[in-house]
Amino acid sequence: MKLILVIDILGTIAFAISGVLTAMNKRLDPFGILIIAFVAAVGGGTLRDILINSPVEWMLNLTYVYVIFGSLLFAVIFRKRLGYFRKSLFLFDTIGIALYTIVGVEKGIAAGFHPIICVALGTMTACFGGVLRDILCNDIPIIFRKEIYATACIVGALVYFLLLKTRIPLDFIVIISGATVITVRLLAVYFKLSLPSIYRNDELE
Amino acid sequence: MKLILVIDILGTIAFAISGVLTAMNKRLDPFGILIIAFVAAVGGGTLRDILINSPVEWMLNLTYVYVIFGSLLFAVIFRKRLGYFRKSLFLFDTIGIALYTIVGVEKGIAAGFHPIICVALGTMTACFGGVLRDILCNDIPIIFRKEIYATACIVGALVYFLLLKTRIPLDFIVIISGATVITVRLLAVYFKLSLPSIYRNDELE
Amino acid sequence: MKLILVIDILGTIAFAISGVLTAMNKRLDPFGILIIAFVAAVGGGTLRDILINSPVEWMLNLTYVYVIFGSLLFAVIFRKRLGYFRKSLFLFDTIGIALYTIVGVEKGIAAGFHPIICVALGTMTACFGGVLRDILCNDIPIIFRKEIYATACIVGALVYFLLLKTRIPLDFIVIISGATVITVRLLAVYFKLSLPSIYRNDELE
Repeated sequence: MKLILVIDILGTIAFAISGVLTAMNKRLDPFGILIIAFVAAVGGGTLRDILINSPVEWMLNLTYVYVIFGSLLFAVIFRKRLGYFRKSLFLFDTIGIALYTIVGVEKGIAAGFHPIICVALGTMTACFGGVLRDILCNDIPIIFRKEIYATACIVGALVYFLLLKTRIPLDFIVIISGATVITVRLLAVYFKLSLPSIYRNDELE
Repeated sequence: MKLILVIDILGTIAFAISGVLTAMNKRLDPFGILIIAFVAAVGGGTLRDILINSPVEWMLNLTYVYVIFGSLLFAVIFRKRLGYFRKSLFLFDTIGIALYTIVGVEKGIAAGFHPIICVALGTMTACFGGVLRDILCNDIPIIFRKEIYATACIVGALVYFLLLKTRIPLDFIVIISGATVITVRLLAVYFKLSLPSIYRNDELE
Repeated sequence: MKLILVIDILGTIAFAISGVLTAMNKRLDPFGILIIAFVAAVGGGTLRDILINSPVEWMLNLTYVYVIFGSLLFAVIFRKRLGYFRKSLFLFDTIGIALYTIVGVEKGIAAGFHPIICVALGTMTACFGGVLRDILCNDIPIIFRKEIYATACIVGALVYFLLLKTRIPLDFIVIISGATVITVRLLAVYFKLSLPSIYRNDELE
């Protein structure tokens, strides 16, 4: 329980800081940076909660709000040195999408949806904050263009449902499927994998 | 009943393929294409269901999900030859907006809203998927810029309400107002009609 | 009661016209202009109502719809002369965000949310319509880039909560916090204030 809370907060920090960095890159003013940080951190969960018609989580539990404010302050003050933290940030972010995926899947199951929809909800929880961040900054969302990112979430969510059919206890299922997301993502970045291109060379230009 | 299901599925196919084509045009990766196809096909209905606080349809009925996956596969495999299908696609799309308009109007009536709001809900159901598709691909939504598209939906929805005041049975009202959407759209494309420009020539440039 | 209604309508007019002007600037067709005007005027309230899971206001009360149609007609007809109205528009807009902020805060309180969330809801009600307007027109939202706009709403909402702890009657609290929004905004524009830049000169370029 405690562990999940810690990981959840680390994930929120990573997502919020990714928002701050994107917003500062576009030279937004402090208010703009706050909004982008917020949207990046809670956007995915908000969409999920609206779609399953459940109360929006960050509106009820202020921990998220405080964590986002703290991350914003930290990122703005140490913006010159965020390069040093790049690896930690990447790790938080990866752990973050793993946890967010599982939270989304479990909320979907609790609300009685079909596994395919739950996989979509998990992926959405993990990825949609980044999509909104990029739309607000007027970019094509990065996850549509490169990197195995959403794919890692989908694979992890599928593993979750496969294991549900076994007798493995739920705690282990959570750990294994979370670890799957993290492993797929790390391997993809380490080996510079991306989804196979569907465009042949002669189609490029 | 059967007929409406068939038309609904044809409409979903047309919208999904329009998403695939837009996304491939922007050279998105396979995951990006999937999302854009999905959003183009179910975005309008999702917004409608959220606004009227009704369960989101594609989350309960997986037919849409399967149809979208199938369309995606088809469009990616035959992408070189989609030119041959352009006319069929255009027809599906036109039938699709006609049906989506009526579904939206009827859902609005069932939820007890004023006719004006129902017309808006019908038009939104038909058009908002395309708007989201264009926003995610970082374009100004095409329906804001050219073609009588939304206008055809509005006209069809208005015809629906006019006929409701007569003694014409509901089945015929559905058919006539759907046919109105299709006719307005076909005539507009055939005669290259667009809404009268409100910009005078001397205002251009 | 009457006064609030009048101010609410003036605010809706100002927001709708801001949408018309932005849309005409992008040379959208009449339907596109209608949508942007609509979104600018009711977008903030719609997001608020969806987040707190309350019925969406403009779908129940058609006054907004009529006012937006009227503003659209007016703005299109007199588009050459809107320059003369620029000051009145700016004033309506400023009064509009003041009122929208308070409406948002009060809806949040009525739904039982924490003051921080209520401040966010108030600011969102006042500012999100403009954000959506800019996203649909493919711009980075203006409030992320310049002017003390959202900040005025935040300050006003905070004043509201501070005064709630005193014995000042609610009517006066509404007036004082609304006046705060207006004053901050007017002073900021008059003295060309903006939020302190967090970018040092040597970081620019």
